[in-house]
Amino acid sequence: MPRLTDAERSELLPALEGWALVEGRDALRKTFVFDDFNAAFGWMTRVALAAEAMNHHPEWFNVYNKVDVTLSTHDAKGLTRRDIELAQRMDRLAAGLTKE
Amino acid sequence: MPRLTDAERSELLPALEGWALVEGRDALRKTFVFDDFNAAFGWMTRVALAAEAMNHHPEWFNVYNKVDVTLSTHDAKGLTRRDIELAQRMDRLAAGLTKE
Repeated sequence: MPRLTDAERSELLPALEGWALVEGRDALRKTFVFDDFNAAFGWMTRVALAAEAMNHHPEWFNVYNKVDVTLSTHDAKGLTRRDIELAQRMDRLAAGLTKE
Repeated sequence: MPRLTDAERSELLPALEGWALVEGRDALRKTFVFDDFNAAFGWMTRVALAAEAMNHHPEWFNVYNKVDVTLSTHDAKGLTRRDIELAQRMDRLAAGLTKE
């Protein structure tokens, strides 16, 4: 899985809502905020099943209703299409569950 | 829920295996290492159910087979008996699952 080209980045990254590039590392980051721990961990569980099926896993930090996610592809040492796909899945699974 | 007294700390903290006090904060920390993501997230799910029932939640960071846990009681601004109880539960649920 190759790293994203400049052309792919220009096309794919602006379409992701709320995701930002990490300083000093080729990775994407987003913080999801839910109503409570139950909603946050429920979402994490659905993401975990998807991630395991993709064999592509997030780095994530959870405290109560917040989940701070970082995506990057270890083997490629940077962003690939799998990170874009996982970000999109996370957003779809969080739709309607996160707070403004 | 009051913070642990010095006497309670002397009694309870040495009995916890692998947990260390955090520098600059009244909290406990331990890193759990499992065989893979499936084992790590399976353990997290069991812990999440216990934590929700206790209404006492961890701060935790997961990447693949590793889970880095920090415990402290927000309302008490430090360690209480609930942190000791959650640490003990986490250890019991991880028994036989973690790598050396």
